[in-house]
Amino acid sequence: MRDFVFKNPTKILFGKGKISKLGEEVKGYASKVLLVYGRGSIKKNGVYDQVVSSLKNSNVSFVELSGIKPNPVLSKVKEGIEIARKEKVEAVVAVGGGSVIDTCKTIAAGFYYDGDIWDAFVGKYKVEKSLPIFVVLTISATGSEMNGGAVITNEETKQKFSFWTSSSYPKVSILDPSVQFTLPKIQTLNGAADAISHVLELYFDGTKNTLILDEISEGIIRTVMASTEILLKEPTNYDARANLVWSATLALNGINGTGRNGGDWSSHAIEHSLSALYDIAHGSGLAIVFPAWMRYVYKEDVPKFARFARKVFNVSSENDEEAALEGIEKLKGWYKSIGLPVTLDDAKIPKDEIEKVVENASMRTPFGKLKRLYPEDVREILKLCM
Amino acid sequence: MRDFVFKNPTKILFGKGKISKLGEEVKGYASKVLLVYGRGSIKKNGVYDQVVSSLKNSNVSFVELSGIKPNPVLSKVKEGIEIARKEKVEAVVAVGGGSVIDTCKTIAAGFYYDGDIWDAFVGKYKVEKSLPIFVVLTISATGSEMNGGAVITNEETKQKFSFWTSSSYPKVSILDPSVQFTLPKIQTLNGAADAISHVLELYFDGTKNTLILDEISEGIIRTVMASTEILLKEPTNYDARANLVWSATLALNGINGTGRNGGDWSSHAIEHSLSALYDIAHGSGLAIVFPAWMRYVYKEDVPKFARFARKVFNVSSENDEEAALEGIEKLKGWYKSIGLPVTLDDAKIPKDEIEKVVENASMRTPFGKLKRLYPEDVREILKLCM
Repeated sequence: MRDFVFKNPTKILFGKGKISKLGEEVKGYASKVLLVYGRGSIKKNGVYDQVVSSLKNSNVSFVELSGIKPNPVLSKVKEGIEIARKEKVEAVVAVGGGSVIDTCKTIAAGFYYDGDIWDAFVGKYKVEKSLPIFVVLTISATGSEMNGGAVITNEETKQKFSFWTSSSYPKVSILDPSVQFTLPKIQTLNGAADAISHVLELYFDGTKNTLILDEISEGIIRTVMASTEILLKEPTNYDARANLVWSATLALNGINGTGRNGGDWSSHAIEHSLSALYDIAHGSGLAIVFPAWMRYVYKEDVPKFARFARKVFNVSSENDEEAALEGIEKLKGWYKSIGLPVTLDDAKIPKDEIEKVVENASMRTPFGKLKRLYPEDVREILKLCM
Repeated sequence: MRDFVFKNPTKILFGKGKISKLGEEVKGYASKVLLVYGRGSIKKNGVYDQVVSSLKNSNVSFVELSGIKPNPVLSKVKEGIEIARKEKVEAVVAVGGGSVIDTCKTIAAGFYYDGDIWDAFVGKYKVEKSLPIFVVLTISATGSEMNGGAVITNEETKQKFSFWTSSSYPKVSILDPSVQFTLPKIQTLNGAADAISHVLELYFDGTKNTLILDEISEGIIRTVMASTEILLKEPTNYDARANLVWSATLALNGINGTGRNGGDWSSHAIEHSLSALYDIAHGSGLAIVFPAWMRYVYKEDVPKFARFARKVFNVSSENDEEAALEGIEKLKGWYKSIGLPVTLDDAKIPKDEIEKVVENASMRTPFGKLKRLYPEDVREILKLCM
């Protein structure tokens, strides 16, 4: 196990009806906020009304920024920074999933930075101060509700990059599993694949002797899978939602990353190139890329891939190599069985455009901890996605 | 799963040599501290020198309170409050295990309270303000290094009671597994039994549909057991220590308690009566009481006890009742196999004094969530400890 520093100050309010507490939580920090959300589903499922009512009850006024899309973009962030400054807000409230939260984190950081906040994504500016951030989570996937990370796409440069800083941890995140009852099925599935991928990025980073973290990791994956399978049949099963919601948060709240080498993150890097170029959800992209990456790199740590197969899929083979390969096929098979794409074809990404993806990824290569990947490796992994 | 609020702001510095960072962490809060420790083992293993050197390097001055014993007492707390006030310290630094940390938490709370700080243990005073608390952990067991709880014995009334408050979370806890290399074997074992018991108090509180928490709980217990078995043979195995140290912290840092009914805590309540009356370590007391409690109450939730048996001890019986009973015997057998007491006799507690323990426990009865226990139940459980 490696040395680590762990601190996660985010307060979680979990349960049905907890959105009514938002105003009370915000008012200690702000009397006026920027309220950020997506493309209006929250107005149909009642979440918007709950949010507005809670803010009003606590005399917190607000201005709005709406229309945040999946794979959120820098131009929208800049629009938010401008509004936040002009309106002199004192906090940002994200009502949505990872895209909305990450947009808010970047607005909250950009509020205090005179330059182009994209500098934070390319290492030219170290974020140390942000407006206070509050979250009402409407889709479980990225774990952004309880960490300091944000991923944004720069449309001009086609770069989907990230930053991570302690000032970006939300002050309070409200997780009401029941608001996810009405999610389109594919979004629940994408969220599950994203959460599993976060666990696996950390799990397969080559660090040895991390038993407690491996146990927690395997437990999170088994729970995500079991809960997802229930939700496919019963989307309004509260307990399955609750287990999935909390698992997805725990997947990337830092606990699971303690003692490791920071995670591998190659599959995320490759997927970010896919979703920077094509209209594909991050979770779907990961369902395609992750098993291919595993197949490409498993020889770097055969015993760990065998452990994964045995602990998550009850693979019985005593031969590590066989077990490792069977586990990878089982993961891919599970994604397919629940209805996620597992090939570029499934996602309607043209196979003859692989070079565009390789070129995009090459803006970040080399990446990866278990195996350092270069453009030629990315090309081979993409071929395994066919 | 139940609704919950979760927040844990403690910063963890984990790894060999990390004690050198203590001064840097403290100086943002205090220029003078009360340094609290036990009966001198830290002067033999070099921890005291590391602490003093780090504080001096950061120009943090200190006064000392030493001689804290296992099952720490109120009189020592009062001595600490007096010194802290007289010397106008701005923080307390605990160098030790749960006994030292809990003494510090109580001093830190008592510093701001004009009455008798015992009031906080009997519900007459709600602690809302404490001096900042810093921890250098020297034995893993109670989890107090990353939570807001404290347990203290009032020698006059023979009450071993607790309080829990948000101001008692340490600001920073330093966990260097290597400082536990020289622990007497029995202390490592007591710590393991304490950590396992914390997990089980939460696990068996009767809440349903807590899959993600059960998975984490079982993973912690399996890790504690595997690490302890290695340490019996190789007490200086760093990775086994590291896994045990972090597992014991995670056992009671709140994550594991989310979504549950607060835990059962009957075994702790009964054990607290044992160790209030007899010279027995808390972990040893729990190794005796917990399997007896399980045996007494398992019928309240047979499927959960069967799950425990299967997931932790690979019990193969498909009959829940049989599996449950086998799991309880396996836990007791494991405690015995590593060298912990599992009967009152083993701990040299006179069997004919059971009534004294029942009488002491009756100061707190009824207690327990899975099954509400009254003095007659405590008596029956103690009989099962014979």
